Amino acid sequence: MKSIKASTYFVHFKNKGYEELNALLIKKNYSSIFILVDENTLEHCYPSFIETLETKKRIEVIEIESGEIYKNLDTCDGVWNALTELSADRNSLLITLGGGVITDLGGFVASTFKRGIDFVNIPTTLLSMVDASVGGKTGVDLGNLKNQIGLFSNPEIVIIDQNYLTTLEEREIRSGMAEIIKYSLTFDIKLLNSIKNFDLSNIDSLIHKSIEIKNQIVLKDPKENGLRKVLNYGHTLGHAIESYFLESEDKNNLSHGEAIAIGMVCETYLSHKVLNLPYEKLKSVKDLIESIYPKISIKKEDLKSIFNLLKHDKKNSNGQINFVLLNDFEDFKLDCKISNRLLEDSIHFYNS
Amino acid sequence: MKSIKASTYFVHFKNKGYEELNALLIKKNYSSIFILVDENTLEHCYPSFIETLETKKRIEVIEIESGEIYKNLDTCDGVWNALTELSADRNSLLITLGGGVITDLGGFVASTFKRGIDFVNIPTTLLSMVDASVGGKTGVDLGNLKNQIGLFSNPEIVIIDQNYLTTLEEREIRSGMAEIIKYSLTFDIKLLNSIKNFDLSNIDSLIHKSIEIKNQIVLKDPKENGLRKVLNYGHTLGHAIESYFLESEDKNNLSHGEAIAIGMVCETYLSHKVLNLPYEKLKSVKDLIESIYPKISIKKEDLKSIFNLLKHDKKNSNGQINFVLLNDFEDFKLDCKISNRLLEDSIHFYNS
Repeated sequence: MKSIKASTYFVHFKNKGYEELNALLIKKNYSSIFILVDENTLEHCYPSFIETLETKKRIEVIEIESGEIYKNLDTCDGVWNALTELSADRNSLLITLGGGVITDLGGFVASTFKRGIDFVNIPTTLLSMVDASVGGKTGVDLGNLKNQIGLFSNPEIVIIDQNYLTTLEEREIRSGMAEIIKYSLTFDIKLLNSIKNFDLSNIDSLIHKSIEIKNQIVLKDPKENGLRKVLNYGHTLGHAIESYFLESEDKNNLSHGEAIAIGMVCETYLSHKVLNLPYEKLKSVKDLIESIYPKISIKKEDLKSIFNLLKHDKKNSNGQINFVLLNDFEDFKLDCKISNRLLEDSIHFYNS
Repeated sequence: MKSIKASTYFVHFKNKGYEELNALLIKKNYSSIFILVDENTLEHCYPSFIETLETKKRIEVIEIESGEIYKNLDTCDGVWNALTELSADRNSLLITLGGGVITDLGGFVASTFKRGIDFVNIPTTLLSMVDASVGGKTGVDLGNLKNQIGLFSNPEIVIIDQNYLTTLEEREIRSGMAEIIKYSLTFDIKLLNSIKNFDLSNIDSLIHKSIEIKNQIVLKDPKENGLRKVLNYGHTLGHAIESYFLESEDKNNLSHGEAIAIGMVCETYLSHKVLNLPYEKLKSVKDLIESIYPKISIKKEDLKSIFNLLKHDKKNSNGQINFVLLNDFEDFKLDCKISNRLLEDSIHFYNS
């Protein structure tokens, strides 16, 4: 599959990726190599990955616990201290091997260790492949606020190897699919057919197409001043819902995609109400999402906390919450303001 | 005094600085303004500073405790949470008003909050004026390792107002003087006369000259790949000594300048031994430093810990410790390797 040229680096696929990584190791002559994993990727991805590395340099593995709740500064502190104890220097390389927690946190840790060391991202989940492989966002959560601490910083290379997906549970595949639906609704509605019939045999092209779409967007607007906000379609409400379920002790956590899927139904409803997106298109989005994701019940008493979390959305300015909405499929409008009343209606619509 | 053009911003002096800050507030139309202080700058600097601000935007003060021991991730966590609770958004501005801890930590906090908000630095100590006002280094300590976590990130403006120096104890003035001695030895030996006779009446020109020298260096080498390493003259041993005294419960902390002054005597001795810097020049450096700084006793049993800390110096590569040494005044050599035996001798020389 054709490599994709991102701003300062390439996204390579499968064997081409490992070849380029080995070429990088020679070119940069790193003093030592650190691989960041969690218990899952250590078991399922690391054994095949390590076989591809051709180097005589010292290799050290740093393991963190899997899960969004560990995407925080305490975990960073642990990794920074591990790098220090293992004598990482400015000429060391950090390879992240895992899902979005590992690639986002690892990129942040590398970019701030001794004011920045090189890193290479190898996303192993569908979500991190299609969402985190271009765009340069690194970061961690602060309390229940997602990605509140971080910076824009680019890896040396990203390697996409769909073989890692075979180690995932179906729920994780569905989680990544929400981002692909987002790309489809905002930029390429033709993808919707492949999404309806997706399985691991046709997913390669969906991944490649998704990264191409995201790459075109972030090349035009790297720091999210305008166009890039479209990537938040479904995420404004979705993030708040995800955070709320994460912090509620009596609720099961949602996957990122499950939360974003709810957010997309709600924000497509808002698009219908505010921008006159045709009802049948709204209905088709709701039907698609209900065919892929379990129905989550959001109760009236949940709303206050969810709306409260919306106030901390990073896209807000001057206390205003900004939504991306659709005039039509493939035709979006940024910075839409929405009343709380209409937000409430959108959640009723999702529940209906 | 003439403004200095740094890479992406200006260093302005006194009233010109406040005028430019007010112009920036209008131009960027920040949603809210946060001022980071410690208990000392809140008492001594904030009252006169706040008089200069002309804005109707919301202003909030965030106070942290003064002292190097608070230059850590816990303090960052506190400031990030304060910004969050006070509803800072991506269009907020952080103004740092304080010494190197405040400007370094504040720059790091701002550069990583919601992936980066604008900040303005107002250094209030001689050290932070001459050392931290250009160069874009932000960061915090990790355990006893200085500035281990951070990144390169530039403020919008730096304001130098020597009036803040009148609020400092003499020990703090001497601390900053060590950096000025460093600039003199490596780039402009003529400054040494003013240094010998310095007081607050002639310090303006020493500050301006120091910032000009540092600015020329960092413009040529922003990421410390080569030339910029010269700024570490006296700092390789000096940092290790500073960290050692900080972590030793039975020793009083040294000021940064006191530690760097020791480092400069030792590294000038190494320059004499390895690069044949003339003995009378070595002697003149030792005499100057002894005329300004109290004599610190470094014991044989301290050496092991100090050498151990050297191993974590950020300039190391492949386990090698790199020193900047002098062939002569204003003539330096980067990346010199030194045996432990010679290091020990240099400390004996300082003690003598």
